[in-house]
Amino acid sequence: MQQPQSSYNKIPEPALRRLPWYLSYIKLLKKQGEINVSSTQIAKKTAVSATQIAKDLSYVNVSGKTRVGYDIDELILVLEKFLGFTRQHSAVVFGVGSLGAALLSDSGLEQFGLKIIGGFDVSDRVVNKKIHGIPVYHTDEFVERNKKMKAEIGILTVPADFAQDVANYMVEGGIRGIWNFTPFRIIVPEGIVLQNTSLYAHLAVMFNRLNLTEK
Amino acid sequence: MQQPQSSYNKIPEPALRRLPWYLSYIKLLKKQGEINVSSTQIAKKTAVSATQIAKDLSYVNVSGKTRVGYDIDELILVLEKFLGFTRQHSAVVFGVGSLGAALLSDSGLEQFGLKIIGGFDVSDRVVNKKIHGIPVYHTDEFVERNKKMKAEIGILTVPADFAQDVANYMVEGGIRGIWNFTPFRIIVPEGIVLQNTSLYAHLAVMFNRLNLTEK
Repeated sequence: MQQPQSSYNKIPEPALRRLPWYLSYIKLLKKQGEINVSSTQIAKKTAVSATQIAKDLSYVNVSGKTRVGYDIDELILVLEKFLGFTRQHSAVVFGVGSLGAALLSDSGLEQFGLKIIGGFDVSDRVVNKKIHGIPVYHTDEFVERNKKMKAEIGILTVPADFAQDVANYMVEGGIRGIWNFTPFRIIVPEGIVLQNTSLYAHLAVMFNRLNLTEK
Repeated sequence: MQQPQSSYNKIPEPALRRLPWYLSYIKLLKKQGEINVSSTQIAKKTAVSATQIAKDLSYVNVSGKTRVGYDIDELILVLEKFLGFTRQHSAVVFGVGSLGAALLSDSGLEQFGLKIIGGFDVSDRVVNKKIHGIPVYHTDEFVERNKKMKAEIGILTVPADFAQDVANYMVEGGIRGIWNFTPFRIIVPEGIVLQNTSLYAHLAVMFNRLNLTEK
């Protein structure tokens, strides 16, 4: 069963991106033995205003009590479910180079609902081998293999030159969401979800600000 | 709440984040033997308007010629320098778990100006060992060791519970820029550059949109 349509539809992306911060902080509070938490308390530790936090949490199906705040256990459960971390989403990695292999080895992702079930590459160095117990196949086999594997998410870590072609090929094989780690700005058909995580763009922002703070 | 990044320099962060897309595309064009590129041409492949591209590139010290466009070789050089990719920035990784070890092994970062020179952790599993040829030391040794190592960037991949404490400790040891991969919203003193890359927040956005496209 799906959650009520409204809880998915209304939330703006910036609010959605802030929810994991709150989740992370209240999980820490839980470990410290706390039972309740107020938006003012979350505000102090996350540098987001209490008003904004209350508004963000209003998109999630949870309500705080006056003077008491939110029940921590309930808030953790509701947030994890809302964020999709409690359901396993099957993913494959395209491009098992240094970053791709690194993601295959990052078992932490599984705790957040992402289960990597295979890798695809064109190099003999990795094809038909296993990395961290996960099989790597030749890219050409993807469309056929995914009929059984049924991965819904494709992680894109190929060299930038091949990013668009491989993205097209992923979609052909049934991928519905592409997590693009390349610095290349790929274009996807309507209905396909694209999430860009350009580590290099983040580096560029950091370098730029570091240069500006240099005396 | 927006951070006051614009006060540092005139280039706005969204523009800065788009520059690596243009760079990636024109490097591809160079490989294909092209000499010049127009903003209209870049627009077609990056889903950014030509006007926006011309505006973004106006922050960089480069100018196009009428009817010819930008010289590709020059644009690559100028962009790489502007983005900080041509200068090596020394970095250390705090928290050599699955993601931390993965980043230590990602030699691709070095091509973009980030040289990881050491790891720090508290676990015997990794302390005083090498990963991908990079030494891992005990966290307690950082302040002393960084007097010689002089790392300016600290990559934060510790468990969320320790994120704030470790960030404080990094700053004590001379770190000027923190690249935070934890889902925890750390707070840093003024003058310290903070870049958040929460893979889990990106996952949450992707999962949420995938649910919306489900029939």
